[in-house]
Amino acid sequence: MADFVHQRHKPLAHLDRARELVLVCAPLRSNVNLSRIVRAASCSGVTRLIACGNPKIDARIARTERQAFDVEIRRSLSPVLKKLKAAGYQLVGLEQTTHSHNIHDFAFARRTALVVGNERLGLTAETLDVLDATVEIPVYGLPFSFNVATATAMALYEYCRQFPRG
Amino acid sequence: MADFVHQRHKPLAHLDRARELVLVCAPLRSNVNLSRIVRAASCSGVTRLIACGNPKIDARIARTERQAFDVEIRRSLSPVLKKLKAAGYQLVGLEQTTHSHNIHDFAFARRTALVVGNERLGLTAETLDVLDATVEIPVYGLPFSFNVATATAMALYEYCRQFPRG
Repeated sequence: MADFVHQRHKPLAHLDRARELVLVCAPLRSNVNLSRIVRAASCSGVTRLIACGNPKIDARIARTERQAFDVEIRRSLSPVLKKLKAAGYQLVGLEQTTHSHNIHDFAFARRTALVVGNERLGLTAETLDVLDATVEIPVYGLPFSFNVATATAMALYEYCRQFPRG
Repeated sequence: MADFVHQRHKPLAHLDRARELVLVCAPLRSNVNLSRIVRAASCSGVTRLIACGNPKIDARIARTERQAFDVEIRRSLSPVLKKLKAAGYQLVGLEQTTHSHNIHDFAFARRTALVVGNERLGLTAETLDVLDATVEIPVYGLPFSFNVATATAMALYEYCRQFPRG
């Protein structure tokens, strides 16, 4: 077996092009969840994150002092989605719906806006109406649903797996 | 476009057989991180989680009242890994090392013990010595490393993707 030597903070994985993934968060209940999402998104090479509502980022959790992007704050979600759609983004909601795709089998468009819903309410009917697709992560056990930041991390992972070089 | 109707708590995804993935956590600094890992593991259908050190699970975060398994607490990691190895588990550390595989390209054995290290220290040299492999999740941006619970969620996702039915 190979000898393993711990390496902290290896050089970053290389992207041939900037990620075209935009992460959009509906108003969340928890600034902790949002802050965790910010850190995961930045580590994933995401360059644009739009948080709706009136959030406060916790800099210790998000590590914002070392962030590659500024979180854009917008009051409401609808106009954000309209603009992204006009700019050619496929709008993909992370949500269990009647027509959601299993994310294991879902081929993301490179130019995707991943839309994440509120912890309790999920994505509203108004939002679901304008989405191009919804994807869900299979849940195999109690308590029946992933935490929103956990689910977002998994979806970011899947997108990066599909576009490992951007 | 299909009408999407929100569905909370769909029936669970079906497993043809119980998951053979055991999740092993080295002593962590943060009980919050551990508790988040517990919830993610239970949702992933993991049936056994061993936490080393002297942890306290936060029931609100882990949702332990609805957990499918009891977290096993062990003082130290070494004997745990020895027993799992003897029981035929492939010991896979989630860590950046000199010989770590990109998790995107890593084929997990069904019978895997996924070993997660401390937030600051990672996995110790003593632990790395007994592992069969280490896997790393590509990091594309600041702050250079995923939170431990975020990284664990991504690794759980990848294992479930490879064994969607158990």
